[in-house]
Amino acid sequence: MSSLLKKNFKLGCIQLAAGSDKQKNLSHAREKILEAAKAGAQVIVLPECFNSPYGCQYFPDYAEPIEPSPPKKEDAPSWHMLSEAAAETKTYIVGASIPELEPDTKKYYNTAFVFDPEGKLLATHRKIHLFDIDIPGKIKFIESDVLSPGNKITIVDLPEYGKIALAICYDVRFPELAMIAARKGAFLLVYPGAFNTTTGPMHWSLQARARAMDNQVFVAMCSPAQDMDATYHAWGHSMIVDPNADIMDELQEKEGIIYADINGARIDEVRKGIPLYQQRRFDVYPDVSAGKVRFEE
Amino acid sequence: MSSLLKKNFKLGCIQLAAGSDKQKNLSHAREKILEAAKAGAQVIVLPECFNSPYGCQYFPDYAEPIEPSPPKKEDAPSWHMLSEAAAETKTYIVGASIPELEPDTKKYYNTAFVFDPEGKLLATHRKIHLFDIDIPGKIKFIESDVLSPGNKITIVDLPEYGKIALAICYDVRFPELAMIAARKGAFLLVYPGAFNTTTGPMHWSLQARARAMDNQVFVAMCSPAQDMDATYHAWGHSMIVDPNADIMDELQEKEGIIYADINGARIDEVRKGIPLYQQRRFDVYPDVSAGKVRFEE
Repeated sequence: MSSLLKKNFKLGCIQLAAGSDKQKNLSHAREKILEAAKAGAQVIVLPECFNSPYGCQYFPDYAEPIEPSPPKKEDAPSWHMLSEAAAETKTYIVGASIPELEPDTKKYYNTAFVFDPEGKLLATHRKIHLFDIDIPGKIKFIESDVLSPGNKITIVDLPEYGKIALAICYDVRFPELAMIAARKGAFLLVYPGAFNTTTGPMHWSLQARARAMDNQVFVAMCSPAQDMDATYHAWGHSMIVDPNADIMDELQEKEGIIYADINGARIDEVRKGIPLYQQRRFDVYPDVSAGKVRFEE
Repeated sequence: MSSLLKKNFKLGCIQLAAGSDKQKNLSHAREKILEAAKAGAQVIVLPECFNSPYGCQYFPDYAEPIEPSPPKKEDAPSWHMLSEAAAETKTYIVGASIPELEPDTKKYYNTAFVFDPEGKLLATHRKIHLFDIDIPGKIKFIESDVLSPGNKITIVDLPEYGKIALAICYDVRFPELAMIAARKGAFLLVYPGAFNTTTGPMHWSLQARARAMDNQVFVAMCSPAQDMDATYHAWGHSMIVDPNADIMDELQEKEGIIYADINGARIDEVRKGIPLYQQRRFDVYPDVSAGKVRFEE
């Protein structure tokens, strides 16, 4: 057994079809969580913006507070659905993400949660790198028009299994998060994310495989299902990649769930074959994980 | 025009078929350089170990000194062939690589050169990360049995064009080199390299495209041609990738030359669309290029 994983487990990623009805989105997400748990998943991931359509115009209407912790049930139905579903299924849930409203500052964030099998909140991640891009004639999206960025890298210790890292969508384009998390002992990087029909075919799979290859960890990318009637056309193609950058399972555009066995021996095998962790030359260049890093642990 | 490139140019990568006859390898490499120059290439790249077969057992027999600079012609025919071919064709040549013998220490290195259009040596790079891997039943190679590692990151300023970075083969697996070079202003990363029939299909293209995507620079990977009669089966598949991670041109296993227009406007366009260089969060994690780095500039 790997020193990184205390126990192997089955990971499930739900490529959810969400619409404009928040209550329906939550009950549908709950059904899919029960389905994944029934199929044996012990850690279950939801996609970015699972309680709302993706788009700056929607975030304020679907936002919820996360404080006080726990927040009031009537204010924070998404938080409570996740907590209850985790407890009901006795699984870890990476409930990622929802628009968050911080009541005091009136700031909005793109925020993900991790709940443990008793329904207790283990960690939150606020998207650090906001999705502000402008590819002429293809896609323009300025998330920072509405959202504020998070300021912390999120590594979560799942008591039964070990450490995973959590970041959201555009965060994946900044390899430092993955490098730091892996070097701090994370065996799995989870990126709920909604790439689109422009950036998806360009870089979605390449991002997942690059992070896995360079850090020799499992990577899960979990997207909403594609809805060509929505204002934002998510790419879909949720995938789980192994520490050698091989795609273990991948969806197409439609709703579905993918599963993969997260096996510590596979990490050990890959790192023994290509022993990057013993070969880095921190006498020639700095170790980004050894410097000053702001963590949410 | 990009602030990174002073002038656009045509890059040529020679996927060379080298055998056991060193003199033949050199004259053949020279012919291919002339061919690439005639086709308009202004910067020409040779593959790793172009004067010898690849393998620890060969390095001592094919090694040459690089000191004094210039080394004596009878001791260093590879160095002089490159210098003369650069002057003859009025091109920059990334003559990469040969086994180097350091006479004083009796140490061997895997060393690449950059010559300018007057035949003057601009830079050398000694492979920093030696190729020591062991994938059971597939490939075992321990380069450090014979070679010593270099200790410096190599960024070369080509006076007419701007900065390129040079590293060799297994160096590509360590993303810090690419991150540092790109952040220091390199617009092109050149990796002469000999992946093999195991690691090639796994990671060759993924490495090239990941470095390009994460750093929004051009990437050239230049391999020896595949020779299934040799002891080491190089992957071939030399490729040039653009700053959006699109493959501009790629060879298969056989000898050949690929060309690509290295255009500063393409870098600007990609970086404007997805503005990573303005979005990195060095308040959350360190900038690896801002720390202590050992350079060969």
